[in-house]
Amino acid sequence: MGSLADVDYETLHCTVDADGVALLTLSRPEQLNAFSVTMARELEQFFTVDARDDAIRAVVVTGAGRAFCAGMDLSAPGNVFGLDESLAPTPEQMRADYASEPLHSGIRDTGGRVTLAIHALPKPVIAAINGAAVGIGATMTLAMDIRVASEAARIGFVFGRLGIVPEACSSWFLPRLVGIQQALDWVYSADIISAEDALRGGLLRSVHSPDTLVSEALELARSYVAGRSPVALALAKRLIYRNGAADSPLQAHLSDSLAMFYTSIGDGKEGVAAFREKRQPEFSGSANALPRLFPEDD
Amino acid sequence: MGSLADVDYETLHCTVDADGVALLTLSRPEQLNAFSVTMARELEQFFTVDARDDAIRAVVVTGAGRAFCAGMDLSAPGNVFGLDESLAPTPEQMRADYASEPLHSGIRDTGGRVTLAIHALPKPVIAAINGAAVGIGATMTLAMDIRVASEAARIGFVFGRLGIVPEACSSWFLPRLVGIQQALDWVYSADIISAEDALRGGLLRSVHSPDTLVSEALELARSYVAGRSPVALALAKRLIYRNGAADSPLQAHLSDSLAMFYTSIGDGKEGVAAFREKRQPEFSGSANALPRLFPEDD
Amino acid sequence: MGSLADVDYETLHCTVDADGVALLTLSRPEQLNAFSVTMARELEQFFTVDARDDAIRAVVVTGAGRAFCAGMDLSAPGNVFGLDESLAPTPEQMRADYASEPLHSGIRDTGGRVTLAIHALPKPVIAAINGAAVGIGATMTLAMDIRVASEAARIGFVFGRLGIVPEACSSWFLPRLVGIQQALDWVYSADIISAEDALRGGLLRSVHSPDTLVSEALELARSYVAGRSPVALALAKRLIYRNGAADSPLQAHLSDSLAMFYTSIGDGKEGVAAFREKRQPEFSGSANALPRLFPEDD
Repeated sequence: MGSLADVDYETLHCTVDADGVALLTLSRPEQLNAFSVTMARELEQFFTVDARDDAIRAVVVTGAGRAFCAGMDLSAPGNVFGLDESLAPTPEQMRADYASEPLHSGIRDTGGRVTLAIHALPKPVIAAINGAAVGIGATMTLAMDIRVASEAARIGFVFGRLGIVPEACSSWFLPRLVGIQQALDWVYSADIISAEDALRGGLLRSVHSPDTLVSEALELARSYVAGRSPVALALAKRLIYRNGAADSPLQAHLSDSLAMFYTSIGDGKEGVAAFREKRQPEFSGSANALPRLFPEDD
Repeated sequence: MGSLADVDYETLHCTVDADGVALLTLSRPEQLNAFSVTMARELEQFFTVDARDDAIRAVVVTGAGRAFCAGMDLSAPGNVFGLDESLAPTPEQMRADYASEPLHSGIRDTGGRVTLAIHALPKPVIAAINGAAVGIGATMTLAMDIRVASEAARIGFVFGRLGIVPEACSSWFLPRLVGIQQALDWVYSADIISAEDALRGGLLRSVHSPDTLVSEALELARSYVAGRSPVALALAKRLIYRNGAADSPLQAHLSDSLAMFYTSIGDGKEGVAAFREKRQPEFSGSANALPRLFPEDD
Repeated sequence: MGSLADVDYETLHCTVDADGVALLTLSRPEQLNAFSVTMARELEQFFTVDARDDAIRAVVVTGAGRAFCAGMDLSAPGNVFGLDESLAPTPEQMRADYASEPLHSGIRDTGGRVTLAIHALPKPVIAAINGAAVGIGATMTLAMDIRVASEAARIGFVFGRLGIVPEACSSWFLPRLVGIQQALDWVYSADIISAEDALRGGLLRSVHSPDTLVSEALELARSYVAGRSPVALALAKRLIYRNGAADSPLQAHLSDSLAMFYTSIGDGKEGVAAFREKRQPEFSGSANALPRLFPEDD
């Protein structure tokens, strides 16, 4: 599929099928796909640039070999979380003052840079959790829209055992996905959760046989995008995340009115015409040309 | 029941029983109760004006015939979503600028006007989904407090198939009702969901036999209001929706302290007296006389 | 355990075990542990001052005798909800004006003062609901992180029957724990809920035999804190509650980056070292020395 095949990743592998579904594989199997600074940089590159290509309609993420991602690679030198200690305030300063511009002070969680990039992609993203997903391996999936898992998956929010906190914006995603009580229980216990428990707790959409996990995840992605308007999908994703966190329905009304109007004079015209004529629609919009719905939009 | 019987609706039918429970029936059975501009206007009139009558304590909404509401009537002329194209910005303008006052620019989603009216009624509202509830037929139920359905109900957030977005403030309500993952899965798939799946996903309170759905919904409404203070019900509804979306418990403390004080010197005095005297309370408050709990209140 | 044993409560009893797990017992068994002004004051004292002692790592709350807490003691003189009527606006004033500084006007819900104190404790708090938990007896548990219950527990949000509203910030906690629809159904119905129904509705983590409830709750608390950094636990709790209610993942990224940095140069260094050396970590941080993560932090 052209451009994507040309991208030369060190820790990732990407293929795109004829329906525009990309399969992105975390590819450090001998390290159980442990998260490294290089992998972080390549994931940011993939989600903020490469996957914006109109040829990609949806993304499925999985791991090479038997793990999904075993967490931060703790064998790296320096601050293992990739934080630059020389630029940062002292603990005393952090207790005394609220750092009003932390993003300018050199303190940016590496995992969070990746999950913000995943979250911002205006296309469906599915995690196909094939094995161990621990630490950042667990929290990176929270920024994906849908999580399906193999019966062999094992998920762990184990930060507490290392004396650190859940990162990668997981304190935003996890309680919204499973509720406060379940989020606190998993984070406090810091245990490894089976696929069955994760399904029961609301984290997973569905559990699959190890043999069919990836093919079923790809099929699910195809069912989301086949014959659909990329614009309508992109705006629906944005509306549900942003308005689901808004103070009031009135705020949703401001943005969904704009989005509905935009589509009603764009791909929606073709959609209604096709419906009336009992034929398949042929949408022409692009997820790279979206209306600005919210003040914080680019 | 006096005033309501006098209202002459074209697309709705309303009866009110001796307990103050209104049964509002969407009544275009030959069009499967498809949503039209007239129905939208009449629903707004009902929820913002007529149902404010103190004689109405709660509302049950159902559909005439075999459907609940089959969605927007796509046979209407002009912009099928009722939007005024002449007043609106161009697509290029919408991509370049965030429309800071969209409500003043002629772009208001018709479905959202209706769900905001439903949401604002300070009384319990129950959807009794008797059959197909598709598009706006599905999203209008999200603004109702409780959803019960017949085994024959079929619910579809099918917007994606038409190249348009979920509207009617559904991007606020749906993730709050069923979580982000389930909301995205239903909206991406754009499939028709069975009553059983909707129950499992958390959208429905309960599923009933087609023969008894409406009578059981009416009985549920009666159980909510019989012997209850209309003021206490109205304030509880407002607090749960508004504070459930607030940033912090402290914000809830500001408003529930006011509401608790208001009721403690009003219907709460009678409630406590009746409890001590082991008799039924006789409340005198009205849902038309409420304290202002939030800055945005009228 | 030193200082705690010296505190002389009238309505509470507290013991602390060798692992730092406090068992706080509501102790007015002949009044079914009904909530009084004295109990409110002592609970505030416990959660804002006494339980901050570094010797306490987690708190389990239960009731003496057969009830957890039967609600507000309605036999008290004056305004039964502890509100000062002489300092407050009239009902007419409350309908006309939004009281912009309600906390300065003498109107503060007593239950809310208690739940804000519980919520602010930077340590895991578990409700072990051993019997009836009604009114404030139910809503006070919502501010605890985890709820486990005996099969004999009975929970009631019965405010509507007394003509008053759900208080104690429950309009913030309840919809976040169980969703809007379940919250409204329980508050509208004002019925007594069985442990089984409360589990199914998502309010409870788990249901236990009456004989083993407290010991299993204590064991759960131990599993949360044994070998863990008090700093990491405190920050995780704060992040999940606060960011779970934030508008966007970007806001979470600001605060979890700070928290991750703070722990990565503190207890996280020891945690990673212990992990590499395959030994138990020995953390030295204190929940009384935390970074300021949010503008509203003290």
